[in-house]
Amino acid sequence: MQQVSRNKTFGGDIIKYEFVSKSLGGLTTQMNVFIPPNASDSAKVPVLYYLAGLSSTEDNGAQKGNFFASAAQEGIAIVFPDTSPRGANIPGEDDAYDFGTSAGFYLNSTKAPWSEHYRMFDLVTKEIPEVLVTSSLPIDVKRASIMGHSMGGHGALVSYLKTAEGTYRSASAFAPISHPTQSPWGTKAFDGYLSGGVEEGKAWDASLLLAKRSAKATHIYVDCGTADQFYQSGQIQPERLVEAAKEAGVQDSVLLNMREGYDHSYFFVSTFGADHVRWHAKFLQ
Amino acid sequence: MQQVSRNKTFGGDIIKYEFVSKSLGGLTTQMNVFIPPNASDSAKVPVLYYLAGLSSTEDNGAQKGNFFASAAQEGIAIVFPDTSPRGANIPGEDDAYDFGTSAGFYLNSTKAPWSEHYRMFDLVTKEIPEVLVTSSLPIDVKRASIMGHSMGGHGALVSYLKTAEGTYRSASAFAPISHPTQSPWGTKAFDGYLSGGVEEGKAWDASLLLAKRSAKATHIYVDCGTADQFYQSGQIQPERLVEAAKEAGVQDSVLLNMREGYDHSYFFVSTFGADHVRWHAKFLQ
Repeated sequence: MQQVSRNKTFGGDIIKYEFVSKSLGGLTTQMNVFIPPNASDSAKVPVLYYLAGLSSTEDNGAQKGNFFASAAQEGIAIVFPDTSPRGANIPGEDDAYDFGTSAGFYLNSTKAPWSEHYRMFDLVTKEIPEVLVTSSLPIDVKRASIMGHSMGGHGALVSYLKTAEGTYRSASAFAPISHPTQSPWGTKAFDGYLSGGVEEGKAWDASLLLAKRSAKATHIYVDCGTADQFYQSGQIQPERLVEAAKEAGVQDSVLLNMREGYDHSYFFVSTFGADHVRWHAKFLQ
Repeated sequence: MQQVSRNKTFGGDIIKYEFVSKSLGGLTTQMNVFIPPNASDSAKVPVLYYLAGLSSTEDNGAQKGNFFASAAQEGIAIVFPDTSPRGANIPGEDDAYDFGTSAGFYLNSTKAPWSEHYRMFDLVTKEIPEVLVTSSLPIDVKRASIMGHSMGGHGALVSYLKTAEGTYRSASAFAPISHPTQSPWGTKAFDGYLSGGVEEGKAWDASLLLAKRSAKATHIYVDCGTADQFYQSGQIQPERLVEAAKEAGVQDSVLLNMREGYDHSYFFVSTFGADHVRWHAKFLQ
């Protein structure tokens, strides 16, 4: 893991790293890590992952999310992975904002030629925690939670629901793609990345996973703006999560806030960024 | 004034406008305006201007500055002008990051061909307040303060010191170019934009203006990081402001905070953004 840059912020540090990823078939990937000011080898801090949305990188949440004031106060590290492999050189990879580069959908592709590199789920849920453990960073990777925006909200919920209970203590999302087998973004991604198409995509659909949830504890927090154009066009469908929780008999486990007048932008995310960090802090400490 | 976009944030709105600017010789310019949630026609709010640095636009401070949580609480509007004219089509205009496009230096050019369009001082100090008065926005333009970053810090200090006392109640800056007649950025700009070169530039140098200050009240607040590469290379020189205030006999009027380990980026600006808004609020209310 090589340090690319380091900037002091809110008393802590935001550090950009790059490393060769085995999950991504040997491509180099970058991530940002915020270390709060109180962290040390003798006082390791818990970690909150932030997964960004379509057309983003590891920088959007770090620069615009408004997470660091609260993370510094709460003593929580935040890790910002990239949104896809870079430089796989697959024909068509850069043709659309919602497929290929910057649109990895946080799944493991099973369809050639994408399956060699597009394995963001393994990167986020396995490889990055392993990389953090072997680093000298003062992070206790066993205390982890996850959040994300839009495609990254989907990624956060799916990472939470597909891993062993306790891998992440809590999950939150800003305008997540909550039912991707029934949304245009999701069906395009599943058709392209998965050999079994949308049918195989059911295993990557947060609402379908939640409806079958049998874990003892489930903690999900979602914000979505009523003026969000992608909410209005049916890409987001956060209410489906509430229905799925009812089906699973864990209706108290999903808290959905519809936010009057807010849209899909980081002007929305930043408004509620500190709330999400503080909500996760209850589970991380 | 045409609305380009509008996003709800921190209970208020961030609105992008464009208008044809007479200061800029008929070019169209854009600005962002944050309106806090408590503003109304019967409860107009004061205004804080934010001037951005080299290679920026009206968006950098609005997206990364971390000003809105505090501005919403304090009930202050924030106006973000652009950093230069756009589309003047002057040969060489786009050749360098520190001259021409995105580098207007918040002065009125006196040297052809720049003088027809590069009149950012008039835009910021006269035309934008006039445009705001004629708009339907709930802003009381008579209660105004100004802040900025780097080149925009220079712009904020110079706008404060060159206008009639009371035009702005207070000025603050993040790593301002404090003594541009003695900095490479400043001398390049003055040589290029002013027919009298650096000698004429003395009238646009905050430290030289402050040294001759005779106004009754002066309120200047400056943050600068000790790890700022441009501070280290002599572009910023904030200590010169403190010396100038002593020369003018107004040493209590400048508060300079050297911030250990911080650099020149928005990771620095965002850390202290709320502090600046709250400091200005004392003068604006």
